[in-house]
Amino acid sequence: MNTFGRSFRVSIFGESHGEQVGVIVDGCPAGTPLSMEDFKVDLERRKPGAAGTTPRREADEPQIVSGVYKGKTTGAPITVIFLNSNTRSEDYEHLRNVPRPGHADFVLNSKFAGFNDPRGGGHSSGRLTVALVAAGVIAKKVLAGIEVRAMLAEAGGDTDIERALANAVAKQDSIGGMIECEVSGLPVGLGEPFFDSAESLISHLVFAVPAIKGIEFGAGFAAARMTGSEHNDPIMDATGKTATNHAGGINGGITNGNPLKFRVAVKPPSSTPRVQQTWDGNKQAVAPLEVKGRHDLCIALRAPVVIEAAAAIALADLLKSQTGHTG
Amino acid sequence: MNTFGRSFRVSIFGESHGEQVGVIVDGCPAGTPLSMEDFKVDLERRKPGAAGTTPRREADEPQIVSGVYKGKTTGAPITVIFLNSNTRSEDYEHLRNVPRPGHADFVLNSKFAGFNDPRGGGHSSGRLTVALVAAGVIAKKVLAGIEVRAMLAEAGGDTDIERALANAVAKQDSIGGMIECEVSGLPVGLGEPFFDSAESLISHLVFAVPAIKGIEFGAGFAAARMTGSEHNDPIMDATGKTATNHAGGINGGITNGNPLKFRVAVKPPSSTPRVQQTWDGNKQAVAPLEVKGRHDLCIALRAPVVIEAAAAIALADLLKSQTGHTG
Amino acid sequence: MNTFGRSFRVSIFGESHGEQVGVIVDGCPAGTPLSMEDFKVDLERRKPGAAGTTPRREADEPQIVSGVYKGKTTGAPITVIFLNSNTRSEDYEHLRNVPRPGHADFVLNSKFAGFNDPRGGGHSSGRLTVALVAAGVIAKKVLAGIEVRAMLAEAGGDTDIERALANAVAKQDSIGGMIECEVSGLPVGLGEPFFDSAESLISHLVFAVPAIKGIEFGAGFAAARMTGSEHNDPIMDATGKTATNHAGGINGGITNGNPLKFRVAVKPPSSTPRVQQTWDGNKQAVAPLEVKGRHDLCIALRAPVVIEAAAAIALADLLKSQTGHTG
Amino acid sequence: MNTFGRSFRVSIFGESHGEQVGVIVDGCPAGTPLSMEDFKVDLERRKPGAAGTTPRREADEPQIVSGVYKGKTTGAPITVIFLNSNTRSEDYEHLRNVPRPGHADFVLNSKFAGFNDPRGGGHSSGRLTVALVAAGVIAKKVLAGIEVRAMLAEAGGDTDIERALANAVAKQDSIGGMIECEVSGLPVGLGEPFFDSAESLISHLVFAVPAIKGIEFGAGFAAARMTGSEHNDPIMDATGKTATNHAGGINGGITNGNPLKFRVAVKPPSSTPRVQQTWDGNKQAVAPLEVKGRHDLCIALRAPVVIEAAAAIALADLLKSQTGHTG
Repeated sequence: MNTFGRSFRVSIFGESHGEQVGVIVDGCPAGTPLSMEDFKVDLERRKPGAAGTTPRREADEPQIVSGVYKGKTTGAPITVIFLNSNTRSEDYEHLRNVPRPGHADFVLNSKFAGFNDPRGGGHSSGRLTVALVAAGVIAKKVLAGIEVRAMLAEAGGDTDIERALANAVAKQDSIGGMIECEVSGLPVGLGEPFFDSAESLISHLVFAVPAIKGIEFGAGFAAARMTGSEHNDPIMDATGKTATNHAGGINGGITNGNPLKFRVAVKPPSSTPRVQQTWDGNKQAVAPLEVKGRHDLCIALRAPVVIEAAAAIALADLLKSQTGHTG
Repeated sequence: MNTFGRSFRVSIFGESHGEQVGVIVDGCPAGTPLSMEDFKVDLERRKPGAAGTTPRREADEPQIVSGVYKGKTTGAPITVIFLNSNTRSEDYEHLRNVPRPGHADFVLNSKFAGFNDPRGGGHSSGRLTVALVAAGVIAKKVLAGIEVRAMLAEAGGDTDIERALANAVAKQDSIGGMIECEVSGLPVGLGEPFFDSAESLISHLVFAVPAIKGIEFGAGFAAARMTGSEHNDPIMDATGKTATNHAGGINGGITNGNPLKFRVAVKPPSSTPRVQQTWDGNKQAVAPLEVKGRHDLCIALRAPVVIEAAAAIALADLLKSQTGHTG
Repeated sequence: MNTFGRSFRVSIFGESHGEQVGVIVDGCPAGTPLSMEDFKVDLERRKPGAAGTTPRREADEPQIVSGVYKGKTTGAPITVIFLNSNTRSEDYEHLRNVPRPGHADFVLNSKFAGFNDPRGGGHSSGRLTVALVAAGVIAKKVLAGIEVRAMLAEAGGDTDIERALANAVAKQDSIGGMIECEVSGLPVGLGEPFFDSAESLISHLVFAVPAIKGIEFGAGFAAARMTGSEHNDPIMDATGKTATNHAGGINGGITNGNPLKFRVAVKPPSSTPRVQQTWDGNKQAVAPLEVKGRHDLCIALRAPVVIEAAAAIALADLLKSQTGHTG
Repeated sequence: MNTFGRSFRVSIFGESHGEQVGVIVDGCPAGTPLSMEDFKVDLERRKPGAAGTTPRREADEPQIVSGVYKGKTTGAPITVIFLNSNTRSEDYEHLRNVPRPGHADFVLNSKFAGFNDPRGGGHSSGRLTVALVAAGVIAKKVLAGIEVRAMLAEAGGDTDIERALANAVAKQDSIGGMIECEVSGLPVGLGEPFFDSAESLISHLVFAVPAIKGIEFGAGFAAARMTGSEHNDPIMDATGKTATNHAGGINGGITNGNPLKFRVAVKPPSSTPRVQQTWDGNKQAVAPLEVKGRHDLCIALRAPVVIEAAAAIALADLLKSQTGHTG
């Protein structure tokens, strides 16, 4: 299902090569200033352009078609849409018989009995993340005074991103990356014991982003090899400030007022220029496949702002549950 | 909030030193055989007993108080409770002023304005995982023909678990661990694009388990350093069987029929025997703290069955959404 | 499914002749005083005792088994249970073949493929309303300063309740009734346009109460025969006070600060002492049936406090969504 | 919040005088044929045109902007939008100070702190029911073999609808009406005991429709004055067919296979041509108000297809929960 959130609710729709993609955001307090201009910086960060990114160019002009009146949110659902312009009408139907490895072709065709829109990945396309970014912009407004900041920490195993991209282009193979996200200015108390822990909601949304295969909070996987005396963060004052931050700003599923930190692993795009093996249903045999189309060699480059959006939406939902929903 | 699930729904309640902990499971098909005996193996796996585990002993006798008639589920909500017997009535109130590092003392006291039950962690205690395990047993019944299996892969950074525990006892410091979970026999098609991806639901529930700080699916964090041609799993036949399984059995958020694999990082218990520093509200200064009580040196030892339960509940929910809810 | 509510969430469980029935309430603010004593008045109002009520006597002693510490709610889920003591072990299995008219025997047997607990109606029994009443008591605490009051306006078409009951006993036939509910002290603004309108939530919960077949707000069905100039309530001051209250305190799905008023129709209990016709599966023919057991001739007598609970739960959910969830 | 449904989920957005109104429908099985043509009949039924209906004319051309590929649903969310063309840019801001009686002006202005879009009722306008009707068309496709049919039974207390309208025009006062809805072809077993009873879900959605003030199932309010032996429907055969249908096709919250029947009361439109009294915030006094604009004298005329949509959405959600969600 395409909806997330209890008090700050996001619903996305659209397909990569359909007419439009969009998002409805429900639960943004009335009276929040909101204009097309507000989306600009984050949308720009998601756009391709660097070496190794897709040549597909979309204007990504957000249109606010509901929920805003005289420049301010009304309390009604906010709908933001993006028209798809730069689509190509090649035939994607053959993917039903020759699924691309690493892609969702096989599972979508099976799950939806061959009725899914195969063009550019259809509804499952990374194109939909433009809608997540738009929702993230609104979520960040709800999180006034709280800063959510993600950055690409490494690509292809290298912290020198430019060099990694140059290598990928040279080798003509796609690469993965690692993103770090930090949220500062959070109040103590967001998140619930157990099912609605801060980690639960953030990870739920982060894994809604295509290509993410791991997440760790604070010391994360390294914590599995630490002792308690190493890992515990000494509390230094009455506000709960800690000397270290191995917990990543969360204890018992609840924010502790220190910076919330997490890292995510982004896999290399499945659409590598390299020839791969897959099951060819026409030949009824394993056969080599060359994936055509316009693709990113390193989607991790464009993903930090999407991860920010995921974190912001989860935290806005927790904050709104805590504070209630109007003005 | 204490509820998870859309079609297979789990609600937990109780406190570490309260009268009972329990769980309501809604959405289990009518006619499923269910008896106290069914819970035995999994509950036994969660029990302490090994070196370095807590001396607190609970009978952990499940009582099925609703939803079962003549040995079979009725389609009505199933309630399973566990009476707490082995609780100790020490005073925990001082934790409000001297919060234990790494614990939720500080955040709970702040979030609930000093009204939370502090005894043994109250509702936020690992004691509640007995209820998750019970729900997991029922979820596994829903997942007939599907096997969910988790094991401790390392403790304290060592794959020799016994040695790691002996070291922890010798050093008198708590240690973390790494758990691997594999689910086999899954159909193609569980999970939805975006918000209800299989990874989203599993991670949501896994992070509901106390002490978990990271999760990765398939190649996980290693994928961030692979190329597309290395990472993509060649598809070998018409059923979608792949030559490798870097995807961990999930493409585009949807199960692909190969074994679903994930790993989780368990942090060392905050209750280490070592003296730690924290803010002492009585002294209005940072001061050393020695944590008393009955604690585990390596909670990861007892956690695999809890992780299995988390995975089983998430997958049962996805399966039930797919197949509907009766007979 | 057995759960209702977004911000104030209620889950019920149990069967008429099972070990216990109970309720989990999640979302009650921490620090709310709560004791067994608080439930007494409302539980007493639900008890049988008058002419024409069932001879089944239950102690209805609530046990608070989680969520309360030192007499105050902790912010964790509150569980209240009631042990069933006065059950009788007659055989109900024959109802699978000879369903009682007006009862749920036929639909439950069909829906749950013969696995439902048939004893005394199983999970579908009016016995479960004791759990709703308990949840209502907690909801009323959340609604501090707001008074929810329901009363029986007529029974068997007669406003003289005593006389109506005497007639029913004399005629040995069950009778229905009409309940009026008024909520005063509500703030302006509870409810949302469309799907979460105040009427939507209240009616959702009211129809969760067995035997309810109609609900109307304010002028209700009479409004269908009024003109706009008759029906509209003139607004008399800046607080929104109206001269009349045909709207029943709700405009556009949102409370307007005037008393919220609604009426509900309670059908006569299906278990009338009269002989009825039904399909007898054993004889494969329509045959007369005499319903045995201990039953109410006028369940409407005991229902007002249940209707209050339904309204209070719905309004507590709306209020909590508005104000957020902690102390 | 603007979303309804667990397995068949509907989210609406838009404002009366905004750019567009629309709906996202999630949970429609892949492979369902769907075209603009399918919406035509139901949209036509909702259109004004008869005596006493608004002179506002909208083309009501549905645009399917997601979820359909090659004329069939894909399993992804379906979005249908309607551009608003025939809006007028009068000033509605004065309604903040002089709220129209019976309208939501007062409560919206209060709830959303003066930020709501006041033009033509903004998000709370009956204009949004065009989106409900569109969702209803899709819901009816899900309910293949089940017929949902609503009709206007009376207007202004008169079963001669033409005469009633002529009277309303003559008297220049708005009138209410009564709608009857019948659903045939339903399977036994839709609905759950208690919170998700068939009546609960249907009434929840019916009260989401503006101007509805009452609902009754089967004998409804008349049942309150019947005896059990009169009200109970004798069961006539093994399929559960009953001799009468006082239950309206629902027992214990669950459909029994007989026609599901309910009636709803529609109040007269608040925008009567008559002069009314209200609080005039400018004058700080009660003052006469004449409501301008283009309005319906009898909105009940156009409401049957909206009520059908409400019933169809609720039943599609119950059916999908029962049968699961793919092709």
